[in-house]
Amino acid sequence: MELQQAIEKYYEYRTKLKALGYVNYLISWDTETEAPLGCLEERSKQVGVLSEMSYQLERSKEYIELVSYLNNNIDQLDDILKVEIKKTNKALQQSLKIPMDELVEFSILMSKSASIWANAKVNNDYSLFKDTLAEIINFSKKMVKYLETEELKGYNVLLDQYEEGMTKEKYDKFFALLKEEIVPLVKEISKQQKPINKIVNKKYDINKQKIFADYLMDVMCFDKNRGLMKESEHPFTSGYGSSDVRVTNHYYEDLVLSSVFSAIHELGHGTYEQQCNPELDSTYLSGGTSMAMHESQSRFYENIVGRSYEFWKRHYPKLKELFEEELSDVSLEEFYRYANDVECSLIRVEADELTYPLHIMVRYEIEKMIIEGNVSVDELPTIWNRLYKEYLGLDVPNDKLGILQDVHWSGGSFGYFPTYALGSAYGAQLLYAMKKDLNFEEECSKENLKAINEWLKEKIHIYGATKSPEELLIASTGETFDAKYYVKYLKEKYQKIYNI
Amino acid sequence: MELQQAIEKYYEYRTKLKALGYVNYLISWDTETEAPLGCLEERSKQVGVLSEMSYQLERSKEYIELVSYLNNNIDQLDDILKVEIKKTNKALQQSLKIPMDELVEFSILMSKSASIWANAKVNNDYSLFKDTLAEIINFSKKMVKYLETEELKGYNVLLDQYEEGMTKEKYDKFFALLKEEIVPLVKEISKQQKPINKIVNKKYDINKQKIFADYLMDVMCFDKNRGLMKESEHPFTSGYGSSDVRVTNHYYEDLVLSSVFSAIHELGHGTYEQQCNPELDSTYLSGGTSMAMHESQSRFYENIVGRSYEFWKRHYPKLKELFEEELSDVSLEEFYRYANDVECSLIRVEADELTYPLHIMVRYEIEKMIIEGNVSVDELPTIWNRLYKEYLGLDVPNDKLGILQDVHWSGGSFGYFPTYALGSAYGAQLLYAMKKDLNFEEECSKENLKAINEWLKEKIHIYGATKSPEELLIASTGETFDAKYYVKYLKEKYQKIYNI
Repeated sequence: MELQQAIEKYYEYRTKLKALGYVNYLISWDTETEAPLGCLEERSKQVGVLSEMSYQLERSKEYIELVSYLNNNIDQLDDILKVEIKKTNKALQQSLKIPMDELVEFSILMSKSASIWANAKVNNDYSLFKDTLAEIINFSKKMVKYLETEELKGYNVLLDQYEEGMTKEKYDKFFALLKEEIVPLVKEISKQQKPINKIVNKKYDINKQKIFADYLMDVMCFDKNRGLMKESEHPFTSGYGSSDVRVTNHYYEDLVLSSVFSAIHELGHGTYEQQCNPELDSTYLSGGTSMAMHESQSRFYENIVGRSYEFWKRHYPKLKELFEEELSDVSLEEFYRYANDVECSLIRVEADELTYPLHIMVRYEIEKMIIEGNVSVDELPTIWNRLYKEYLGLDVPNDKLGILQDVHWSGGSFGYFPTYALGSAYGAQLLYAMKKDLNFEEECSKENLKAINEWLKEKIHIYGATKSPEELLIASTGETFDAKYYVKYLKEKYQKIYNI
Repeated sequence: MELQQAIEKYYEYRTKLKALGYVNYLISWDTETEAPLGCLEERSKQVGVLSEMSYQLERSKEYIELVSYLNNNIDQLDDILKVEIKKTNKALQQSLKIPMDELVEFSILMSKSASIWANAKVNNDYSLFKDTLAEIINFSKKMVKYLETEELKGYNVLLDQYEEGMTKEKYDKFFALLKEEIVPLVKEISKQQKPINKIVNKKYDINKQKIFADYLMDVMCFDKNRGLMKESEHPFTSGYGSSDVRVTNHYYEDLVLSSVFSAIHELGHGTYEQQCNPELDSTYLSGGTSMAMHESQSRFYENIVGRSYEFWKRHYPKLKELFEEELSDVSLEEFYRYANDVECSLIRVEADELTYPLHIMVRYEIEKMIIEGNVSVDELPTIWNRLYKEYLGLDVPNDKLGILQDVHWSGGSFGYFPTYALGSAYGAQLLYAMKKDLNFEEECSKENLKAINEWLKEKIHIYGATKSPEELLIASTGETFDAKYYVKYLKEKYQKIYNI
């Protein structure tokens, strides 16, 4: 086979596979945001047929040979294709290690597990979910066995899938530091008397909340010609390439802060996607480089920028203008304080910036036991509750507010949670590097975040997935990942707010 | 080849082709209702790849042989597959008659012609469109040549594509009758002094218009679990099978009647789709049997039911409740009169029920000349304007309000327009049959249209495309198509309203 010919042929496959991926994106988007419930059964059939078509291409002898051939001649490829083939080959080789019938069996399990979990959660009855969870755990452990290599064993196989290069050893060190530094800080803050919260227990018109979310799109310079914001039950970001980036938001009449920070969070993901080099759109390297790096961007915008005093100094008047009556007795200082309220709570997705990583630590510890230990599903709620007591000082009253709260495990996503905390830590490391190049506080207080966007674009976004998180961190901060910046950022910020 | 094996194999192809059709539906829906403009270029590439995949299946040797084989053994197939294979074979044989390179050439022309037309329309400059129109006409004439058979020649080839069995001879007779009966009636009405219109020149809150559109969904028993209503520039109905039926509506602050009747019209299309036998969803025979029959349903609901006095006797109070102030001085009788106002106007899509077919006659006459005559594109505006004078008594002031108003010809859709008028006529024929089985006026004045829906479901909707329009008309009305019912309906209704 001639190299050039192989490349062309590979591109043909990629074009078709990407088109089928495009379809998948659009079907999910529609399902999450507007599809009538009655169409979902028919829809799942169509999704099955399309996945099968995709599968037939990806598992065809020709495609497998092409990827292997290109991987064997990787030094002759241009820089971008080199990275892509390396990734594609790795994923393909991994997928080939898992017997087809087990994959099919797993996908059948997955097609029903989320609704079994949801039902157990609604009924606050872990016993309805535990057998399914046991099956999922069994499969995940089997998959780990198939995918183990000389370098990667056990839980590390899964951690690597969500964040290449991250291992248990690295995460252990990371979480040990948080435990040492953040748990005591949280305990100290918990002792303080809380001020009366004047923004809760009021009604905030949802249309006005939407107007403010739209205003935030402009503040963040989100390009509405290449994206949109819609409503869904759980906010998320989706899209295809840099020209079609879609975020959703949710609105509660009594919780104005919820829609504000969800919007900034999702627009943070969206900005990463929109600022990626459009030339990568046709490759597998468009969009974010990893789960944690994506999360670092959404959290950077939401917490580091969006919960800063300077940001609200500029934008609080606009919010007050919309909710003149509701916020009439709330000063900027008070509002800033509410936006950074620290409180140990039971639900991860509602947690504040400081206690958030403690929720992740609980899940990380449990995942280690699940994948590498011999813990039974019956013991898990007890372990969960013990860890919440230890890290957050809370008694978990029931499993709905405890082990049943997250969807992830019902989807077999073990190894995913740690990337959330890692993302926050990446963000803090980027902050200190950014501060060397620009006056961060001043930029936060400007009409829009153009300069901050520009910095992140140049250092991170533009590269898409052509560079690894590690490469990006070294290039932008001069160092490999170091959790000390995260601890420094959290301590500086919260010690000041709470006068510690 | 064994028959059963061939059937299975055919189903495999159909499953894939339908999945690709599903994708197409969803992409168009998204494009029309919310996709950001900046993604359309990338999107058109993806659509191209997916069409190519579809094409490769449909033009594969195996598929062509399968369809031919099944068609040769058609007597051994079950009733539904028999109809489907007959249709599939016909369409396939036709498409094979057209050389591949010409199809590609035409699709390239089509990918740009709509925007060339739109630009000419915006600029009110026919000269910007006429060369493209000439190309489209040339191609259409060439296509006619390829598709001609012993039975079908010239324009009949195109008419048959949009409404099987309809020919120039039949349409000529139909339009001759309209010309004889309706043109004089319109002229007589035009002489009358119009009452002052008290519903125009007011502002109707768009959110309230949406509430009323939602109310109409309930009146029409539209199943919201299997469908939805959204907004778009031009109202349309789309969807996939009977479990996912989507309509759109548009809202103008100063035109309350526009959103009301657009909603009923599109929900009429939607009801046809929702009431089709769900077992047909996986076949090519789901949904309406023809363009005209589909249009007959939307117009039946919009005009025959939705503009009846009895309908508004029941529902006008609800509208008045929403627009208490705006409609305070408008009585039910006045409202009914406005909803049936007859006025010769220049724009087809804004035309009233009575003058509407005259707009179609203009286009039909011109299409005959285009396809079978030697008329040049330069002469078309003059011919257009002459016919508007003749049928509607109007002087056309410019091409934007004249020949440039409709998108159809820019998409090469010659033969489509006549089905609109035919649809109205089908509807009237169905009305007189329905009246034998139920008290039509009483049913229109009920809380919802359940009984009328039920009649149409049993007689028309349930069959999807398993029976031809002709078969459905004979079974439901006891006769083949006869335009006299349409003329009778229009004369009875408008002579009464206008005291003629």
